Amino acid sequence: MGLDALYDELIERLVAACSSHDPERLVTFDRTGFHYAKPDLGLIEWMPTLDLGRRVSIKTVGYHPTNPTERGLPSVLATTSILDTTDGRILALCEATFLTALRTGAASAVATDVLAIEDARTLGVVGCGAQAVTQIHAISRVRSVSRVLAYDADAEVASTLPGRVPVPGIEFELIGASDLAAMLAEADIVCTATSVDIGAPPVLPDGPHRPGLHINAVGADFPGKLELPPTLVRRALVCPDVVAQCLAEGESQVLTEDELGPDLATLVRDRGRCEATRADLTVFDSTGWALEDLVAAEMVLDHAERLDEGVDVELNPVPADPYDPYGSLSP
Amino acid sequence: MGLDALYDELIERLVAACSSHDPERLVTFDRTGFHYAKPDLGLIEWMPTLDLGRRVSIKTVGYHPTNPTERGLPSVLATTSILDTTDGRILALCEATFLTALRTGAASAVATDVLAIEDARTLGVVGCGAQAVTQIHAISRVRSVSRVLAYDADAEVASTLPGRVPVPGIEFELIGASDLAAMLAEADIVCTATSVDIGAPPVLPDGPHRPGLHINAVGADFPGKLELPPTLVRRALVCPDVVAQCLAEGESQVLTEDELGPDLATLVRDRGRCEATRADLTVFDSTGWALEDLVAAEMVLDHAERLDEGVDVELNPVPADPYDPYGSLSP
Repeated sequence: MGLDALYDELIERLVAACSSHDPERLVTFDRTGFHYAKPDLGLIEWMPTLDLGRRVSIKTVGYHPTNPTERGLPSVLATTSILDTTDGRILALCEATFLTALRTGAASAVATDVLAIEDARTLGVVGCGAQAVTQIHAISRVRSVSRVLAYDADAEVASTLPGRVPVPGIEFELIGASDLAAMLAEADIVCTATSVDIGAPPVLPDGPHRPGLHINAVGADFPGKLELPPTLVRRALVCPDVVAQCLAEGESQVLTEDELGPDLATLVRDRGRCEATRADLTVFDSTGWALEDLVAAEMVLDHAERLDEGVDVELNPVPADPYDPYGSLSP
Repeated sequence: MGLDALYDELIERLVAACSSHDPERLVTFDRTGFHYAKPDLGLIEWMPTLDLGRRVSIKTVGYHPTNPTERGLPSVLATTSILDTTDGRILALCEATFLTALRTGAASAVATDVLAIEDARTLGVVGCGAQAVTQIHAISRVRSVSRVLAYDADAEVASTLPGRVPVPGIEFELIGASDLAAMLAEADIVCTATSVDIGAPPVLPDGPHRPGLHINAVGADFPGKLELPPTLVRRALVCPDVVAQCLAEGESQVLTEDELGPDLATLVRDRGRCEATRADLTVFDSTGWALEDLVAAEMVLDHAERLDEGVDVELNPVPADPYDPYGSLSP
């Protein structure tokens, strides 16, 4: 179906899920997990979601920042299990690394479509890894991006970005750290998607910018991790994906709950009212919402079923006698 | 290899894991999950375990008590994911329904081997479902069980128990509710493995019993669920598998922490001292320990590798370029 159509469908499904979002029916646990420094610094976390009366999805996500340089692997690796709440059987195990990148892009596109100015053309990108690709790609589905100003602390990673973004008609300008203030001044939209260290300085300077600048901050996901200057965050309308999570580990860490703008679901539902803020500085604080994962997983499972793709594995036993624990063992 | 050898190996591995258990290295989260009444009463929980520097295992377990009667499925259905903490990749997804029953049996066998009298012959069983089979089977690997007194609230389920237990040389006597006091008086070992309701009366009466009676209580796993009479629990030496979990949802709910006996790991490590309590009434409060799941999963994965069994699925992408989120997609 092609990536463009996949983004369009995911954005549409995400908008629909936000519109009909019922916090009584969709129950999520805050992301939690194991954080360790052995063998390397890393973490494995799980994000369980109950779609009441239907399914439970559990995404397990690993973040191992040395993966790209040490192992030729993405830093984020994830899988999602889908279980049936009627009987508890596992229905599917689904690769979620690609889906996580895809849904993070799609979530930014949903927020950007509400909050960015209509004729946004220039996109600033800080951090040129895998997430930059999906941010640029997804945003180009809702705005006519014609120019990307791209910065990465690793100039080699930045240099390969243009070749990794399969969107025609974009002119890339690779910039240095000293050009970030100029980038901020010129951009209509900015995406920060870095692996900033805990307690490290922000990846973007504060300074003059266009009145309607919209920023998608997707990299911070840990207490103490911040991509944006607090001064900038404090004068912006900050829209969290998940309020509690953003206050704990997003850019919203420097704010209190009553200083937050509408969350992602509200942006979609109160679209008209929220579009009125386009003239202001806006920040989408994206820490990753379990709803996004559920929507993305269900989309690919629907396509897998339609295309008869995937591998069928008989995993949970269906014994002749449910009271016989050995009934499903082969002789 | 046969089930007897499988139990022997699992018991041996469990004893070894208890002996070398280092709470600094083995980090577990308390079991938590979604409990719901829609479409039917049920729950899906997850039990994550970190074996520091090596692996994370996450068992997801569903408990849907209407499964046997409504769907011909076991009430407990479980799967375990094993992830590598070096890079976060998922290494295996492993059926864990059978393994849960197997490891619950093996854990009772480990506790029974320390706490039950050496020449125990008569085993009382309350609840004759799938878990009764693995309890009887596992205990028969550590004691010469020759007689089983079996009770189930559903007489039909009780009637099929003898045919489901592939252990030769056991004489089964199916008993009624009015025989439970006599069973308690005669048994050397008792196993309770019921789906007792929250707040329901205990499944066993209190009353006279042999001085060295050992009870494995494996059914209670929820706040308010109790299989044993509190009066009996209060005068017994109660050995929990996991202290905090037993105090929250096991038979130990009626006790305080300082009233508990040694936990399972201590039973194994201080075996000599703990064996000295064989003349007392002892209870193994089995709520399910993540270590047991890890040991069981690693055992079957070792055998699957040795026998070249299982299905290889390429799940997490290994792209040519870790910064290219589309690099692992087929053309």
